[in-house]
Amino acid sequence: MPQEERTRLMRARLLEATVECLVERGFSGTSTTLVSERAGVSRGAQLHHFPTKNDLVVAAVEHLTHVRGAELAAAAQRLPRGDRRTRAVLEMLGDHFTSPVFTAALELWVAARTDETLMSAVAPLEQRVGREVHRLTVDLLGADEAKPGVRELVQATLDLVRGLGLANTITDDARRRARILDQWALTLDTALKDDK
Amino acid sequence: MPQEERTRLMRARLLEATVECLVERGFSGTSTTLVSERAGVSRGAQLHHFPTKNDLVVAAVEHLTHVRGAELAAAAQRLPRGDRRTRAVLEMLGDHFTSPVFTAALELWVAARTDETLMSAVAPLEQRVGREVHRLTVDLLGADEAKPGVRELVQATLDLVRGLGLANTITDDARRRARILDQWALTLDTALKDDK
Repeated sequence: MPQEERTRLMRARLLEATVECLVERGFSGTSTTLVSERAGVSRGAQLHHFPTKNDLVVAAVEHLTHVRGAELAAAAQRLPRGDRRTRAVLEMLGDHFTSPVFTAALELWVAARTDETLMSAVAPLEQRVGREVHRLTVDLLGADEAKPGVRELVQATLDLVRGLGLANTITDDARRRARILDQWALTLDTALKDDK
Repeated sequence: MPQEERTRLMRARLLEATVECLVERGFSGTSTTLVSERAGVSRGAQLHHFPTKNDLVVAAVEHLTHVRGAELAAAAQRLPRGDRRTRAVLEMLGDHFTSPVFTAALELWVAARTDETLMSAVAPLEQRVGREVHRLTVDLLGADEAKPGVRELVQATLDLVRGLGLANTITDDARRRARILDQWALTLDTALKDDK
């Protein structure tokens, strides 16, 4: 295996181990030592690629965002057309916002709130991801943002699934979430159709 | 001042100092030492009332929830009737979910996610608060939960403002939030009226 490929795989192992640590132990329970052990990577190699914990956690969430972005794009190809489409889009978003990438990102957001250095890395990442998910949602719903109110309804949809994701960290919320998304699909279809 | 009243005031000072610490420094930056210094209460007295950090943070969020609940009830009295009411209810909820009590609760939820002892105290508190806010919102909107879909739309409204609250911890989001709530008020009025 060429050196370049081995480096790429080692970085991926480190970043995936970091996400696992964030999900299992939270931000404060995640340490560079723990991550290097878990990934089976020497401390020296790890510090060479990611000198600080902040470098590691931001890169990890960014990495997982790419992976999940590719998964979302693939899932989007399989969405049904017609009447069931809106509900299927909401299901996909609901899954996304209750996945480990959401949990890891949540740990990062909350830690960044009281850590300026971390915030300076997290805020631009979050804005970029937010724009990408918004764009994808507009496309998948076939929403026309030139119509008044449509942009806000798409944003509301994403804030709704973010709120559902947060609720799900306290209690397993799958049944309640399904009922809410059923109703929101109906309301959203009516609103997107009715808006002048 | 009678002893009982002095004790009550001291407890309130401790709990308010705890909330301030959670907001300013996060859960991991909050310590019982810091709180007793900030509140001007001796370590001994503090440990007598709240033996552990978990006792302190759960009691603090519960205390602030009561205070905010009373504030919400007072604000609810001042809400306009008629066309502007739904938007005013959403404004009130939006303010609630971007207030220090939300921030302190968010720190608690995220810490509880990876701390079983804390979770066993936080989960019932969260469920109780959730039910109360749901009940208040139904009353304020004059929503008829016997109609299909209405209960889910009220829940969606609360998940939306929870999502907006989380977004607001990363960037000041007041203008975006106002536009989304403008649109949500229109959509909600139409949906609550239309549902059979």
